[in-house]
Order: sequence, then C-alpha cells, then structure tokens
Amino acid sequence: MDIARDTVGMVAEETLDPADWADVQALSHRVVDDAVDYLRDVRDRPVWREMPADVRDFFTAPLPRSPAPLAAVYGEVSRTVMSYPMGNIHPRFWSWYMGSSNFTGALGDFLAAIQGSNLGGGNHAAGLMDNQVVNWCKQMLGFPASASGTLVSGGSMANIIGLTVARNVKAGIDVREHGVAAIEKPLRFYGSDQIHSCHRKAMEALGLGNRALRRIATDAGLRIDTSALRAAIAEDRAAGVTPACVIGNAGTVNTGAIDDLRALAKLAHEERLWFHVDGCIGALIAIAPQNAHRIAGIEWADSIALDPHKWLHAPFEVGCALVRDATAHRRTFAVTPEYLESTPRGLASGEWLHDYGLQTSRGFRALKVWMALKEHGVEKFGRLIDQNIAQVSYLAGLIEAEPLLELAAAPTINIVCFRYQPGLAGEALKALNTEIMLRLQEQGIAALSDTTVHGEHWLRVAITNHRTRRDDLDLLAREVVRLGREITAEGRVSS
Amino acid sequence: MDIARDTVGMVAEETLDPADWADVQALSHRVVDDAVDYLRDVRDRPVWREMPADVRDFFTAPLPRSPAPLAAVYGEVSRTVMSYPMGNIHPRFWSWYMGSSNFTGALGDFLAAIQGSNLGGGNHAAGLMDNQVVNWCKQMLGFPASASGTLVSGGSMANIIGLTVARNVKAGIDVREHGVAAIEKPLRFYGSDQIHSCHRKAMEALGLGNRALRRIATDAGLRIDTSALRAAIAEDRAAGVTPACVIGNAGTVNTGAIDDLRALAKLAHEERLWFHVDGCIGALIAIAPQNAHRIAGIEWADSIALDPHKWLHAPFEVGCALVRDATAHRRTFAVTPEYLESTPRGLASGEWLHDYGLQTSRGFRALKVWMALKEHGVEKFGRLIDQNIAQVSYLAGLIEAEPLLELAAAPTINIVCFRYQPGLAGEALKALNTEIMLRLQEQGIAALSDTTVHGEHWLRVAITNHRTRRDDLDLLAREVVRLGREITAEGRVSS
Ligand SMILES: Cc1ncc(COP(=O)(O)O)c(C=O)c1O
Ligand SMILES: Cc1ncc(COP(=O)(O)O)c(C=O)c1O
Repeated sequence: MDIARDTVGMVAEETLDPADWADVQALSHRVVDDAVDYLRDVRDRPVWREMPADVRDFFTAPLPRSPAPLAAVYGEVSRTVMSYPMGNIHPRFWSWYMGSSNFTGALGDFLAAIQGSNLGGGNHAAGLMDNQVVNWCKQMLGFPASASGTLVSGGSMANIIGLTVARNVKAGIDVREHGVAAIEKPLRFYGSDQIHSCHRKAMEALGLGNRALRRIATDAGLRIDTSALRAAIAEDRAAGVTPACVIGNAGTVNTGAIDDLRALAKLAHEERLWFHVDGCIGALIAIAPQNAHRIAGIEWADSIALDPHKWLHAPFEVGCALVRDATAHRRTFAVTPEYLESTPRGLASGEWLHDYGLQTSRGFRALKVWMALKEHGVEKFGRLIDQNIAQVSYLAGLIEAEPLLELAAAPTINIVCFRYQPGLAGEALKALNTEIMLRLQEQGIAALSDTTVHGEHWLRVAITNHRTRRDDLDLLAREVVRLGREITAEGRVSS
Repeated sequence: MDIARDTVGMVAEETLDPADWADVQALSHRVVDDAVDYLRDVRDRPVWREMPADVRDFFTAPLPRSPAPLAAVYGEVSRTVMSYPMGNIHPRFWSWYMGSSNFTGALGDFLAAIQGSNLGGGNHAAGLMDNQVVNWCKQMLGFPASASGTLVSGGSMANIIGLTVARNVKAGIDVREHGVAAIEKPLRFYGSDQIHSCHRKAMEALGLGNRALRRIATDAGLRIDTSALRAAIAEDRAAGVTPACVIGNAGTVNTGAIDDLRALAKLAHEERLWFHVDGCIGALIAIAPQNAHRIAGIEWADSIALDPHKWLHAPFEVGCALVRDATAHRRTFAVTPEYLESTPRGLASGEWLHDYGLQTSRGFRALKVWMALKEHGVEKFGRLIDQNIAQVSYLAGLIEAEPLLELAAAPTINIVCFRYQPGLAGEALKALNTEIMLRLQEQGIAALSDTTVHGEHWLRVAITNHRTRRDDLDLLAREVVRLGREITAEGRVSS
C-alpha cells in the first residue's frame, strides 16, 4: 500500500480533460461549422466514391502509443472518414434499407455523450426520457399505454426481444432455468418466405434452431399465404410440435410487401399463437395519414419491432421493441428479483431499465429521437413517410413510361424493383443491370441495390430519405437508360 | 399512380434539414460552449441530486404533434436532462461500474451521426476504421492478429458473442440448424460464484438455461477455486454432461477479484473446454504497466469480452468481443454464405461486418474510441488505469488509518469495500451504512454503491474515473465519518 501511495504521490494526477478548454472550444466550433457545410452541401457531392489506396492504408496503422493534438486528429478524420462515407445521408441514396440521419439527432448524440448517463437504470432524467420515448412509440402505433417496451441497438435486437418473450411464454416450462431442451413438444415459429435474415439469426441465437422457423409461401404480392399458414400449423400440431408464434411482416426488405396483419392477428388468436410483427420497415407508417391503413391490425400484436433509425431518420443506433404484456416482458429478462426493492431514495431508486433486454449498461439513445420529434412534431414525420411512398409511385410511373425500363410489380410502399430491359434475358440481363448499378455508384450518381424477386434479378430502389426530391428520380430514370445504352454500345457486359 | 403523382405535385417536398442553416450553426455554437462549461465545471456541481416534481412531470408529456423551434427544444434539454444526470462524469462518482466519458468521444459521436454510415457492411471508410479499432483491441491485449472481433453495445453483448461461439463450437452438431435440444449430451458452462449477472442472461437467451451455468466456489480472495472446478468437471462428465466452457473473471463486479487466468487456461486446455474471459472490468489492465501482470494468461483465451465504455471512458455504448478462431466466429453468425461474393466493385464490395454478431445495422462506435486513442495515445490510458488502482490503494490506506472505518479486504484493483463501524452489527450496521450512502448522494458529495461480500453488507467504491484526485478520496473518508457520527447522534437509523 505504501508503494502505491508513493506512486500516486510522485506523479501528478492525469485526466482526459484538456489542459486548455479554450482550445477545445475553438476546435469544436470548427467541427460544428464543417458539419453544417457537410450536410448543407451534401447534394453537390457524389453519393459514393471509391477510396484511394492511401486512405485504405491509413486504417492499417497500429495502435497509437503517444499523443497527437486533437486538431490533427480531427484533420485525419475529415480527410478519411468524412470524405468517404457510405452515402446514406445523400438525397440519391436508395440502397439497402436505412434512414438518412439528421443534424438535430447528431446534436442529441453529442449531448448524450457529454452528460454521459448510463441508462441501465437509476434515478436520473435520462432514464425518464428513455421511458417517455418508449411511450411515444406506443402512441405512434396505437399500442396500449400498459404495454412495455425498450430501446435497443436496432431492428434485429428488437425482433430478438419480441421472439425471446414469445419463446419463454409459450415454452410451458421455466425455460430460463431449464433451457429449451426441457420443452416437451418443440416450439415452432412461422413467417413468410420473405422474412428478414435477422429472424434466422434470432432463432439460432435462442437455441431453437433455424428449423424451428417454418417459412410459409407467399402470394403474387409476396404476402404470406394465410391458408398455407393454417395448414402448416395443423400439420405441425398433428406431428407433436407446438405452434408458438407467427411473425407478420409490416414491410419486407425485398419489396416492401405487407402481410395481412388483421388476418394474422385473428389466426394467432384462434390458434393461441404469439403474434409478433416485424415492423422495422413499416410499423411507423402508422403515423402517415395517407398510408396508415396499410398496416391495420398491427395494434393487435403481442410484440412489435420498430426501427427509429430507419423512417424517423435517427442517427444509428436505435430500434424499439414493444410488448403488450409488460409482466411477461419483464419476466423474460429481469435479473433484479421483484421483491428486491431499489433503495427508497437516492441514485438507485429508479427503475432498472436493463430488466427489459439483454444489455446491462445502456446508452442514451432516446435523446436524439426525442429532440427530433419535439423539433418537427410527429405529423411532419408522417408526411415525410407519405412523401417517400408517393415518390416511389412517381418513380414507378417514370419506369412505366420508359420502354427500356421494366417494372417488377407495382410498389406497395417505398420500395420498387425494376430493370433496364433492351430485350435480353438471364445472365446477360443480370450482368448488364449489375454493371448499371455499379457505374451509378462509381460515378457518384445514385446508390441502388439489387435483389432477386420470383427468381429474377432486379435493381431495387428503397426511398427512406428525407432529402430525396422528384427531380432526383427523374435523373435516376434518365441515367439508367443512358448507362444501359452506353454499356450495350461497348459491346461487352463486364461485371 | 396518378393520384400519388398528383399528391407529390401538390405539396412542396419537405425535409428534416433546417430552412436556415445559419440558425442551426449559431445554436450549435451555443451547445458546444455550454458543453465545454459543463465538463470544465463539473467538479463544482453536486455529484447527483433528486429531480423536483416539475422535472419528473415534464417527462409524462404525450407525443408532440406540431413543431417547436430547435432553440426551445434545446432549452428544455438543458433544464431537464443536462441538469439531472446520473453523475458518472463527476470526479466523485464511484458507484456501480462505468467510465466517465470524455469530450473528444462526444465529438466522435457527433461526427459519426453527421456522416451517418451504417457499419453493417459495405465499402466505406467507417467500416475500415471499425476494423482498425478491433485490431487495436487485439494489440492492447496481446491477442493474435489472426483473431476476429466485433464492436457491440457493451460488455453484456460481448459476453453473449463469446458464449454463443463457445456453444456452437462445442455442440458437436449443427446447432444453428437444429437447436440445442438436438445436442446429445447437454453442455455445461462454468464460472465462479462472483460471475456477473449478464452471464445468467446469456445462458437463458441462448436456450441453455441458467442451470447449464455451474457456479464454482471461490477462495478467500473471491477467485475461482480451480480444484473445485476440476472436481465439478469430473462429476459432470461422469453424469453424462459435456463440460463445454469455462468463464474466467478478469475483475469481478463486487470486489475486482481476478481469477488465476493462467491456471484456467491450462485447465481448459487439458479438459478441452472453451476458455472465455469476462474482461469487462479488467482486460484493459493489459495496457497498464504497473498492473498488467495481474491478468497474465488472458492472451490464451479463446474469446474475451472487454468494454471500452468502462476503462477507456468512451461514451456509451461500446463493448468489444474478440475470438481467437476467426472462422468459428464467422460460422456462428454469418448469414451471408461464404461462396456469395460481395459485388466485385462499388459500395457493396466491402466486408459484411454484421456477419460477426447479432445486429444487422450497426452504428459507428469506433470513431469515439479511435479519436481518443489517437489524441492521448494508449500509454496515457494505461497510466490512468494504474492511477485509479493506486487511488484505491490510497483510499484503503485512509480507511485503515481511521478507527471508525473498516476495510473488507485489501483491494485487488480499483474496487474497495468498507464500512463505517462504530461497534454495531447485522441490520443496524447495514441501516447505518445505507443511510450514509444515501446522504452522500443526496448532499451531492459522492456516489458510492453497496454490496454483499461473504454475507456482510459493505459500501463499495469503484474508481473508473479519469477526473478523481486523491483529495476527493480524503474528502470521502472525512465525510463518511462525519455522516456516520451525525446519523448515530440523531439516535435513529432511518433508511
Ligand atoms: C424487415 C426488416 N426487419 C429487420 C431488419 C433489421 O433491422 P436493423 O438493421 O435495424 O437491425 C431490417 C433491416 O433492414 C428489415 O428490413
Ligand atoms: C464483470 C462484468 N461483466 C460484464 C458487465 C456488463 O457490461 P455492460 O454493462 O457493458 O453490459 C459488467 C458491468 O459492469 C461487469 O462488471
């Protein structure tokens, strides 16, 4: 102990706080000014561009041993990270499926980090705001106030939360104690063949195995075939399996298809199944006046996964799981026994928010969502969702009007699949369209992705973007045709 | 389609971007200035204070329908969230176990949100930096460069990642496909009776059940008893159970005890078990020159959970899982088949980072860690860890020197348990110390927690704080005695 005391005595105590706060303040002004320019002028930059070799090399440097001035560190971040982003903040990014962030949300993340609270629990303001944002999510979806919920890292984790509660409720034994091997008749979950890959991962993680998720065929509109579902359930029951849970899609990742949620709710009720809705894409359509009817029935779910980092454009990460039966939710995850009171007063007298999921420490994801909802009001977010859906319809119209473009199907919501079709088929058509997609990216024009629908290859545009305008879509239609012609004229299709 | 087109035509397209960027810029300067003041002056504010009723009420407001000026929104955040934090950024916060954040990390979170990339995958700079920070974690711990890793929401998820790989490797069947019920001889995991509650949650989530985690007795220093462990393994094998994994603690949450990691590595090797180390508290001691020897053997682990939002003081959230066998890691989580190439060029030509964990979308946690490591250099973080450990020794010295204070045991690392002891026992002693703890909080002096060690109630100080100075600990020792006397003099012990 004496040695340690001497050691402390010998060296001055250090801190991560700056020696000179004025320096940091001046630099922060520059960071903020640059950030304003960055978002204000995003439209003038390419959507995406390939990193040069020196930027790639930069990220192979070993662990830094000695210090560097913060201004120099920021300079490196500017030159590398800020200059070669994924592109999803750009008005012409329509690839995969994600939101496009927003400045207010970034301020929210900054302030959350400054005040630093741990949302695992405790009696402090951030915990109350976290709870409030969960309540707002219930209100957006017409879910009962008595339901519980939790903010998580994203839609995948929100689905895991819902499916874990479903597993534990339907197990018929104390599955937390004994594990799934002790369940007498194995549980089966159901979803359409369009279900997102995170459900497979969830089934695997939960120890149920991928086989426990039965994929049900879809109709021409890629919505779950409810009579096939009923037949599968009957077959499984006859085979000694316990039908436990049906997962409804409120917006599939491939085409935006929305299962008939009312029919699924009814079926789940009749068959005594847990009804989980994957609303990562579409649950928030509930706030969009022109389209809310499309997801009617979602409010009857037992659990819902939704994803504010998609159509609320919150910066990553924030997903939300809602569970109708708050007791079942808490019983699935709580390690703080119900009889164990928090302290009656003080810091530890708040609720243990970590009792509703898999994390212990939890960040303050709520603030960025809260600030943007307060600033804009939920009605504007609803209009923005309607706007994206209308924009996709507009694009579908452009595609239909252009003989060289082929539409896969009329879009349901904000996703449309199409291709350049000069009269080719099979691999040649796929190679041509892949090359179009890559050149659109490499020339910084637009970011699309591709997918397979009914066995055919298509380009895919998903508009979850508050910066997109119709003229961006006009440009896209023109450029796809231009590139299609150009590549065909080159007389070869490289990919 | 015509209707939709008309709708778009009728209303001007909206965006979340501000109408006037100059306004946002001016406000952001204010936000940054306030943040500088906030951290510079944190020492002058109370560690924690109770929220008044009007602040609590504020968080019961329903979903906002209409907009509000951003400046007004920020005013509300200042008045509520910023004014009533948990307190872990304060120099005298030593409660539970967490880091104290830092300004540079907050800038990192801001910039990550501004550039907005999704780290699920793709070819962009943020993905490369994410990978680099994982590499730096390996370098800090002396883990081989060929190992894999992933940044996750925190230590709990990092442990889940390691334990899931352990489960899948040891199952002896295709457990992803068939689930744990198909495993012939049930798997057993081992950890000491001091193991963190997140491991129970992990076992439950993974479908193995809490019973599959066998708690092994600890010695007087609260370290796992390796001969008891060997006996338990033999007993389980004889009973037809498959010993699968031993979890070593590099720092327990109660007292900071460090299991003999070399002995566990050897035992795991001999018994053919997976060796996972929960290093959420202590793995990073590897970078602290005076104390690194305490965790020798950690580099032999098959998987390690570490937690940059603890002793690297990164703002929440960032944990890290490292796995020695990169192939086993990927095989546990990947849904992108190995034969399925990403596109050869363009946005989708990067690695799929989501193939190493449970998330699909992933935020840019790496930036805040990267910026702080570049600014300060890893050597300074090592010195700060040594400093906290020396500070705890210093506090233990103060406790020993004060007859009214009782030390539970000599501290191992940065956690010390003690109590005010005026000659009481049992419930009376517990009530008195609980009241001291609560008044320390309520009077804004210091935040401690309490715990049970060897069946006795103790106050607990965990110093993971780059702002703590020795004079803060002098103050603590004095104030505990003052409050102890004051409460005793009141002639009643309320709690
Ligand atoms: C239908 C659907 N479900 C779940 C997810 C997973 O959400 P996240 O990426 O937030 O984990 C996605 C992601 O695109 C999705 O489209
Ligand atoms: C030993 C130990 N393991 C795991 C955890 C969980 O880490 P996190 O809170 O980051 O999820 C903690 C948290 O304090 C811990 O102390």
